[in-house]
Amino acid sequence: MFKKILIANRGEIAVRIIRACREMGIRTVAVCSEADKDALHAQLADETVCIGPAPSKESYLNMESIISATIATKAEAIHPGFGFLSENSKFACMCEKCNITFIGPSSSVIDKMGNKSEARNTMIEANVPVVPGTKEPVYDADAALKFAKEIGFPVMIKASAGGGGKGMRVSEAEDDFISNFNTAKKEAENAFSDGTMYIEKYIKNPRHIEFQILADKHGNVIHLGERDCSLQRKHQKMIEEAPSIVIDDKLRKEMGDAAVKAARSAGYYNAGTIEFILDKENNFYFIEMNTRIQVEHPVTEMVTGVDLIKEQIRIAYGEKLSITQADIKINGHAIECRINAENPDKNFMPCPGFISNIHFPGGMGIRVDSALYSGYKIPPYYDSMVAKLIVHDATRELAIHKMKSALGEFIVEGIDTNIDFQYELIRNEDFKNGNVDTGFIERLMKNKSTESEK
Amino acid sequence: MFKKILIANRGEIAVRIIRACREMGIRTVAVCSEADKDALHAQLADETVCIGPAPSKESYLNMESIISATIATKAEAIHPGFGFLSENSKFACMCEKCNITFIGPSSSVIDKMGNKSEARNTMIEANVPVVPGTKEPVYDADAALKFAKEIGFPVMIKASAGGGGKGMRVSEAEDDFISNFNTAKKEAENAFSDGTMYIEKYIKNPRHIEFQILADKHGNVIHLGERDCSLQRKHQKMIEEAPSIVIDDKLRKEMGDAAVKAARSAGYYNAGTIEFILDKENNFYFIEMNTRIQVEHPVTEMVTGVDLIKEQIRIAYGEKLSITQADIKINGHAIECRINAENPDKNFMPCPGFISNIHFPGGMGIRVDSALYSGYKIPPYYDSMVAKLIVHDATRELAIHKMKSALGEFIVEGIDTNIDFQYELIRNEDFKNGNVDTGFIERLMKNKSTESEK
Repeated sequence: MFKKILIANRGEIAVRIIRACREMGIRTVAVCSEADKDALHAQLADETVCIGPAPSKESYLNMESIISATIATKAEAIHPGFGFLSENSKFACMCEKCNITFIGPSSSVIDKMGNKSEARNTMIEANVPVVPGTKEPVYDADAALKFAKEIGFPVMIKASAGGGGKGMRVSEAEDDFISNFNTAKKEAENAFSDGTMYIEKYIKNPRHIEFQILADKHGNVIHLGERDCSLQRKHQKMIEEAPSIVIDDKLRKEMGDAAVKAARSAGYYNAGTIEFILDKENNFYFIEMNTRIQVEHPVTEMVTGVDLIKEQIRIAYGEKLSITQADIKINGHAIECRINAENPDKNFMPCPGFISNIHFPGGMGIRVDSALYSGYKIPPYYDSMVAKLIVHDATRELAIHKMKSALGEFIVEGIDTNIDFQYELIRNEDFKNGNVDTGFIERLMKNKSTESEK
Repeated sequence: MFKKILIANRGEIAVRIIRACREMGIRTVAVCSEADKDALHAQLADETVCIGPAPSKESYLNMESIISATIATKAEAIHPGFGFLSENSKFACMCEKCNITFIGPSSSVIDKMGNKSEARNTMIEANVPVVPGTKEPVYDADAALKFAKEIGFPVMIKASAGGGGKGMRVSEAEDDFISNFNTAKKEAENAFSDGTMYIEKYIKNPRHIEFQILADKHGNVIHLGERDCSLQRKHQKMIEEAPSIVIDDKLRKEMGDAAVKAARSAGYYNAGTIEFILDKENNFYFIEMNTRIQVEHPVTEMVTGVDLIKEQIRIAYGEKLSITQADIKINGHAIECRINAENPDKNFMPCPGFISNIHFPGGMGIRVDSALYSGYKIPPYYDSMVAKLIVHDATRELAIHKMKSALGEFIVEGIDTNIDFQYELIRNEDFKNGNVDTGFIERLMKNKSTESEK
């Protein structure tokens, strides 16, 4: 097994990966920006290398610095986490050239699946259903508009390199198209240095259902069931759960088979996620593949008992999957609430700052993945997601009760968080009954503001 | 189901019970001493009643105050936790008379099993093996010495009402017997207001193996496998695990059957524990039954998935067991480290005081049961056990790695704790290899002091 791994990330996912390595007896190297010297991941690792100033471009996105740190510390592999360089094929390629194991798929597969047009074509060839849309990438607004009119409004404008809701816009009609396209393109250029866009039919208020897959370098591919991530705000997931209330065994098998087929046809290895949208008639469409670990991976871990980070490391080392499809049993129900440093009453404005006191919930079936501690100052440069609260119980109803109780115990003093908002969501009758889709939170916020105007 | 339960306890077990109630939708009443007004359990409950001054006799052991608080708050049941009044048959009887459900067995069974001589006789009648010893209780030192000489030294002197190591002494030979007997008897009188003693053959360095049982009021009795609690210091458990490394399926069935037989023949209902000692030749002997939930119950919960506190409440309400013996599967391995506010370098002297900062470990398979928070002042009046760290993984080896990593992340500032000492134990080669018995820690401490003298 690897003796030393460098973690090219920060925050709770860096801590998560360090923990997995510690448990596997692998030494860890953390990298940090100048703003992150006091960060928990920088403290927990066996070694820490400061790789540059706070802006991500100069540190967590600085490939040369990270490769240098890896060589200097004699780490054999890099775990990229999610975000940052995790889906950057150029970086994966640099690792390959420097004889460093990139803990993820090959750079060519990242390229193929990261490029959403190419991913789409791969799926069409593999007979995996996709949303009707452009077959080729579009670069300028006028050509895109022509496509949009062909497909019919509403349409979704998407950055080919996009992810996490960045570079995405819905255009309801012709007259708002050009401005939406340009905004999305600019966002994509800023975030991913890539303004390649594509257009697809917008399926209103679907469910977001994604399948976790694991594939080794020996041709074995399995799926670990689905996650329902329908509770989103502006394409950012807020609550995720496994299994989904609307997926029965038959549909799970059908979608799981499609996910495995998708990964297999892409020549994929390591952990990955096939994202689908599911309409009201249970038609599912491939939307994209995430060629990395996801924020919401813990809900799958809780119901399957499989440690996905450890599996990623073993796969990258060249080991065969230790589990078969038949070994995967979905046990009980897990829910994750993302805890963000933001103020829901002020349009979810990020609220970094000094944490004067923090108290985590605990007890049976409670998991906290976090990089926070009392006295930590959350720097303003990064994502506002600062912790994840995950619960596991025998049924969805019990898991909801447990989450309610756990959110009630979660105290963060000094900054604003979305804990109360999550508490409100988890108590919501429609959520309890499973009547949710990706438009749920938006409608809820609209109703709230209408209420308060009365 | 009950609408409101009063929790007649404090500390992490009170928090544990409040959490179970919250998840079940049951309102909670906490009781607290004047010293515990800032305690977490007093803050978490829906209602809190202060029942008297700090000394336990005047508050947590004050039956009248607790019954009054129950009646005043209209709670329908009392959960006694462990320690305090949990094995006090007089209190259980008072509850019965006041039409309050005592969440535990009937007062007559507590009486029978709490009285160690009577418990022993019950086991002899049920053909459950017991350690050779006195059949009747002994009250004075001379009569006891006569018995001891008959059985042969070394002998164990035990308080009939004892528990948690209080009122217990080993006498190696005739000349130290009288003083040990009197000390143990005095301790028992102070702790339990009951100086009834008994004497048994002392089996040197056995393993401590206990079986968790659940029994409903309809005659159904099951066991949930064993816990190995061999790592003890002065009869106080320090590390507990499930399953035991020395118990195979055959022995588990044999001992489990004996445990079920023991509970059944006692007419037992609710959760209980049958404690055995296991000698080097795998002979097992009943030593006592604990007619309450145990400190170490979480390790059983982690490997079986059964929430024992919730089961206790459902049984007390009159429900049938929702699980059968065949449903119980032992899944993976769990280890618990008790975190005590004490200084291992100063003979484990208790170290209550102000917690200036606390940081819990987290992540997959990590459970913290605790009543601590940053800024909490641990009062000096109560037990030094202030938190429990429990880990769960697929195998014992993985669980040990996880515990090592988790202990390394556990930070408590402001007071001394045994965290470093637990870290040392968990890394110990003999522990790793499973070469431990109830004399292990004592020998380790002796070796350490010999080392430091050199």
